Formats: sequence, structure tokens, C-alpha cells
Amino acid sequence: MRPDELARAAKGAAQGLAHESTEKKNRVLSALERLLMERKASLIAENEKDLRKAEEEQMPSALVDRLRIDDKVLNEMVASLGDVIRLADPVGEIVKLWHRPNGLLVGRMRIPIGVICIIYESRPNVTVDAFSLCFKSGNGAILKGGKEAAHSNKALFGLIREALVQEGMRADVVQLVDTGDRAYLYELLKMTDFVDLVIPRGGEALIRSVVEHSRVPVLKHYKGVCAIYVDESADTTQALDVCLNAKVQKPATCNAVETLLVHRTKAPEFLPRMVELLRHKGVIVRGCEKVRSLIPDVEPASEQDWHEEYLDLILSVKIVENMDEAIGHIGRYGSEHTDAIITTDYNNAWRFLREVNSSLVLVNASTRLNDGYQLGLGAEMGISTTKLHAFGPMGLEELTVTKFIAFGEGQLRA
Amino acid sequence: MRPDELARAAKGAAQGLAHESTEKKNRVLSALERLLMERKASLIAENEKDLRKAEEEQMPSALVDRLRIDDKVLNEMVASLGDVIRLADPVGEIVKLWHRPNGLLVGRMRIPIGVICIIYESRPNVTVDAFSLCFKSGNGAILKGGKEAAHSNKALFGLIREALVQEGMRADVVQLVDTGDRAYLYELLKMTDFVDLVIPRGGEALIRSVVEHSRVPVLKHYKGVCAIYVDESADTTQALDVCLNAKVQKPATCNAVETLLVHRTKAPEFLPRMVELLRHKGVIVRGCEKVRSLIPDVEPASEQDWHEEYLDLILSVKIVENMDEAIGHIGRYGSEHTDAIITTDYNNAWRFLREVNSSLVLVNASTRLNDGYQLGLGAEMGISTTKLHAFGPMGLEELTVTKFIAFGEGQLRA
Repeated sequence: MRPDELARAAKGAAQGLAHESTEKKNRVLSALERLLMERKASLIAENEKDLRKAEEEQMPSALVDRLRIDDKVLNEMVASLGDVIRLADPVGEIVKLWHRPNGLLVGRMRIPIGVICIIYESRPNVTVDAFSLCFKSGNGAILKGGKEAAHSNKALFGLIREALVQEGMRADVVQLVDTGDRAYLYELLKMTDFVDLVIPRGGEALIRSVVEHSRVPVLKHYKGVCAIYVDESADTTQALDVCLNAKVQKPATCNAVETLLVHRTKAPEFLPRMVELLRHKGVIVRGCEKVRSLIPDVEPASEQDWHEEYLDLILSVKIVENMDEAIGHIGRYGSEHTDAIITTDYNNAWRFLREVNSSLVLVNASTRLNDGYQLGLGAEMGISTTKLHAFGPMGLEELTVTKFIAFGEGQLRA
Repeated sequence: MRPDELARAAKGAAQGLAHESTEKKNRVLSALERLLMERKASLIAENEKDLRKAEEEQMPSALVDRLRIDDKVLNEMVASLGDVIRLADPVGEIVKLWHRPNGLLVGRMRIPIGVICIIYESRPNVTVDAFSLCFKSGNGAILKGGKEAAHSNKALFGLIREALVQEGMRADVVQLVDTGDRAYLYELLKMTDFVDLVIPRGGEALIRSVVEHSRVPVLKHYKGVCAIYVDESADTTQALDVCLNAKVQKPATCNAVETLLVHRTKAPEFLPRMVELLRHKGVIVRGCEKVRSLIPDVEPASEQDWHEEYLDLILSVKIVENMDEAIGHIGRYGSEHTDAIITTDYNNAWRFLREVNSSLVLVNASTRLNDGYQLGLGAEMGISTTKLHAFGPMGLEELTVTKFIAFGEGQLRA
């Protein structure tokens, strides 16, 4: 199919889906749960093709692992479908209703956005997750996975369409872009009449190229250069626990901490213990001159280090004079993703919350909590640092928009 | 200034403004109220230059009128500043707070978007309105008015900067693009690091060119092809009143009705009276074949008529078989701007509200009510039919976004 045909088919089907009942949508998701289990053997056989190709091309083993569909991954897919089935349907919710002086009752009602294009890499379970979130929120989905997972994605896409047809719904509400041709994708991203939103997930280079070529609005984050500021008044044990968790619990994620800022009066007591704990977990610490005068065997941090999203067991550490310097550093080097303060001071807690405008700002908690499930959204379609429409994790509500509704009795404009 | 210098200056100043107190922001707006009155003579003298040029260039008198700053227009500017002063400051509002099972208290706090570029034509009062709304919501503003109002806009911009300086604030939070050079504007709209949003207001051609050239997100509406569906069960008097108001109260606006859809069983009783009332007000009626067989002297409507935003005393009228046909017509020809049903039937009212996904959907009220003041937002920065971030009139809240905040006691990711 040409990109315009594919986009038009999705838009047409999505217009019907927008008014579909929650019950019917949930039946499709249940059918998909069943199909994933029933067709396990053929799914794994298709996945094998991708794995073999990856090994032939000598893909690093960590990446091959992310491609693999085994029992554990399949069970997770089914479990996350169950989560989405249990989530409240946002479509049709009336968010607010108020009276105007002329008696007009005005409100806002949630409706789907339309057709959402999701671009992602490697992990094939995103195919099922992205579809289920778009579908439950009444949106058409155009899925564009990585070519390394082509066979797996095609097999999953086939099951999704089968589930739709089983329940008497139009299979066209979901589309798969199965060509690796960038020109095809870029043409699709110019179809503003048929595609309403694009969410690219993956490396910064992929996302920048999508932003460059898309005429459709893009929700995205480029990177997570997350910082924790340990205040003068911080509880030392809490600071140690939170910083360690934020760095080592899963260092390859966008919400792992990359920079530690420590108040100068807190540093002598806190930093030596912190560095010892970090090193015990294999973390390489890079410090400013002040850090190095306190702990001489720390590697020197360069200017580039403060910009760096390591996604690895490396942490840059800076001693700051005060909170102004900490907030200034975050403003200059941060990525508006996730930043935290560790403090017992009331005023400093509130000042940090107010003045740091990142998608999640925490007091006394780990940056790793910036996640749709952890924050209570129930699910997540990625994290946006686009300061428009959605800022932070995107759940089902973020895949809708509100229209105004008005109940009148003949009101006119005077 | 080069576009990057101008955008960077706005961004830098806006970062400070984001944390400014409501009191201080209101003092600036009050200072501007005073300056508008004190400098009335010089303001009107500058406006005269634009008016003279417009007359030399034989601009139509309706357009010249829109350019004019006289006592009435000045008083309206001051009054609308007063309105904005009285509106609640959205910045810092905590929209919601909820507990997670681990005790983490999670919430959403409103913050400014950043720097907003407003592009507009002719009426110079938009310079003051757009600034005041951006400023009150903590955003930097880049204003780009039409070249026909260049002297007036420059004079108003001077007063805005003077008010900022009087109150000890950075004048750079507002910038004026005073060149008509399109290349300059397009370069500005690629500065995604410094400009966060663009709102173009004006003709469809202007808006399409902004969308084509901008890499910054755009909120806009191209046009308002608004329809009213008069249901079988409609109260005839109410239908006559609402349709007449929607067409003639101000026909040149985007929320005026352009298409009337009438249920076939209602048409014989309703349409002859409606057409008579409309004609009495000077409206030209164009109808489908069924309308013409009922009222033979009605002009025939062509396929193009159903797409038309007349912005004039013209109305296209169609007789439909049922509500399916009415909703189908709106989906096919409408612009997702404003649509209304006139009905006394409970089920039809709700079905229309649910199934028509326009920025405002009304039951038994005039489409002319799609306006920030009328709906109770207190002010308006235009109407968006972009189904993202804002859909419908944009008030102060729509010029903000929410960040997540979290109050913890050492919570970690397990």
C-alpha cells in the first residue's frame, strides 16, 4: 500500500472506533490475549527468524535479548493486555461541567486524538502494548517497528488483526509499516489529514530525524540527563539509598540519574560514603575539582560529562555552593526529564518543586519512579518532554483530547 | 536582531518570568493600562500613519476600520487588560494529587509552556491582548503583526516594554518581529530550542504557510464550516431563533453557521419560515434539490457550497433523511470547529454530542457561542481545531502545561 492509502484506511476505520463501546474494545483485547497463547509456537518460530538474522549480523547479545520472544515475554504481553482491559476507558468521560450566567451548561468531554503513529525499535512487545493503548483510547494506530524485528512484528500484527476480525471490528484501525524505507515513513508523516500524532521511541538520532521530517505533531523525549541534588539538610541514609537506586537499579533507562549535585557543607560527610557504595556496585564516578580534592582518586569530569546521558554505570558528581547553583546547573545541562532533591528543609523542597520545570520533579524519592505504572497512570506510551499536550509519562488520558460540549435551551449570542 | 538572537533573548527572560509572582505580573498589566491612557495622543498619531498608508493603497474601508485605534478601541484594550488582571493565575496550580501504594504523593502542577509566537493580521489590539495572556500565564511572547499595522504595533510594543521596565522586569519577555520578511519568520519558526509554540491567527493561506515552514508545534484552525442540524423533534421557535442568530449576528466570524441541515419531516413546516426570516435579514439561501422543490426560488447549492466558509450573508441548506445523514454530512464537509443540533429528543441530543467530534458541540444553542468569554474561560487566544493540547477556545490554562510532582519519604524503584 502507498503511504496515503495506508493512512487513509487507518483514519476511516478510526472514525468508527471513536464511538465504539468499552465492552467491545475489551472483547478484542481479550481475544488477542487468547490468540497470543494459542499461536505461541508459530509466534516463536517467526521470532526465531529475527534472532537468527541478528546473530548472523553479530548483533551484541544485549540487543539480541531484547528481540527475543520467550514464555516470559509472552506472559508479560498477556499480563499487560490484562492491565489495559482493566483500565477505565477515557473516551466519553466528561471532565468538568459548569454553568454560564445565561444558563448554558458547558463542559469538556474526552475524545480520541484520531490516528497515532508509533515508531519504535527492537522489542517486539511494543507492537502489542502500543496497539492496546491506542485501541482502548479509541485511536487508530500505525505501527512502525525496527527492521531487526520484522518477522516478529508481522506475526504479532497478524494476530491483532485476527482478534479485531473475530469481534467483528474493522482490521484497518491498525496498520503496520513493514518497509524499512525511510522515504515511505517520511511521506506518511506529511499526511496531516489522516495522521494526527506521531510518537517516536528510541535513540536520539531516530527521534531527531522524525522531528525534522514530520508535519504531524510529535511527542517525544530526546534524552534523560537526570540529576539529584543532595541538599545541606538531607537525611544521609535517605540520600544514599535514593541516589544508589536511581543509578544502579536499571542504568540503561532514561530516568536513571546521571548527575549528582551535592551541597558543599554536606559533601564531606556524605560523598565518601556515597562513592564507596557506588563503586561497590561497579559505578565509575567522575567529579569536579572540589570532589577530587575531597576524594582524590575520582576521575576528573569534563564539561561534556555534565551533558552526558551515560545510560551506563557512570555518574558525574559536582559540589555546589548552594541551591541556586544546583538549580542553575539543572537548567543549563538537564533535559527537563526527571530531577530530584533530597532535603529535610520545607522551603527548599517547595522551591525545588516550583523552580525546576522537568516532566517529573521529586522530593526525597528516586528518579527511577518516572514511569506511567509507578506514578499511577496504569500504563505508559513513553515519556514526553515536549512541553505541549503531554509532559511526562503518557497514559490513556494523554492519548485523548477534550472537546467542549454545551447543553442549551435556546441560548443566543447577544 | 537576527531571529536566533531574538528567540534566545525571549527564552532567557521567560525562564525568569515562569517563577514570577502573580502580584508582580498584575502590576505590569496595570502599568500598561495607565500608559495606554497617558500616551493616547502619540499612539493615535502613530496609528494615523498606518491609516494614511492604508487609504493611499486603497484598502477596503472595512479593513481600514479594523486597523483604527480610537477612543472606543483604546477603552476596549484597557478593559480587556482589566479582565486579564482579574483572571486567576494558572501557574503553580496543583491540578490533582494522589497517593501511590508505596506512600508517594503524586500530583500535577501547572507551568508555563515557555515562549509563544503569535502571528496575526490587521487589528493592533491583538498586540496588547496576546501579550497580556502570554505574560499572565508566565510565557515569553514573540509578536508578529501585519505590516499594515506596523506603526501602531511598534508604538504598542514600546508601551508594553516601558510597563515591564517600570516594574523592574526584563523587557525581553516580549519581542516584536517588525520585518515583513517571510524568510525571517520561517527561520524563527525553526528555533525549537527557544520557541515552544506558534499560534497563527488569520486567513487560511497564512496559516498553511506557517504549518508548512514551522518546526515548532502549531495550534491553529484553518476555517469554520459550522453546521446546525434541525432535528425532527426540534422546537420550531427555538430552531428559528438559534439559526438566525448563528447566521446573522456576526457573519464574518469563524463560528457563524454556514450550513443548515434539516430533517425531511421537519422541513415543510420549518424551512419556509426560516428562509423568509433569513431573507428579511439579507441572507442569500442556497439549497439542495429537495429544498428547491419545497421553495422553488432558492438558488441551487453546488458541491462546492457544502465546503464553503462564506464569512458572509450566505447559507447553504440541505434536507436530510435522518440523523445518520446529518452526522455523515458534518464528518465529510465540516471543519471540526462548531456544530449544533436543535432537538427535544433526549437520545438524539446525546448521540449528536457524542458522535460529532468538533471543538464545540452544542444542543439547542447558537454556534456563535464558541468563544473563550462566552464559554467562561475569561479570555481567549484564538480557537484551536488541532486535536492536540487544546481543542476549542484557548484561555490562560491552555497556555500552560502540567508537570508531575512527587512528595516522597525515600521511595525507591524495586
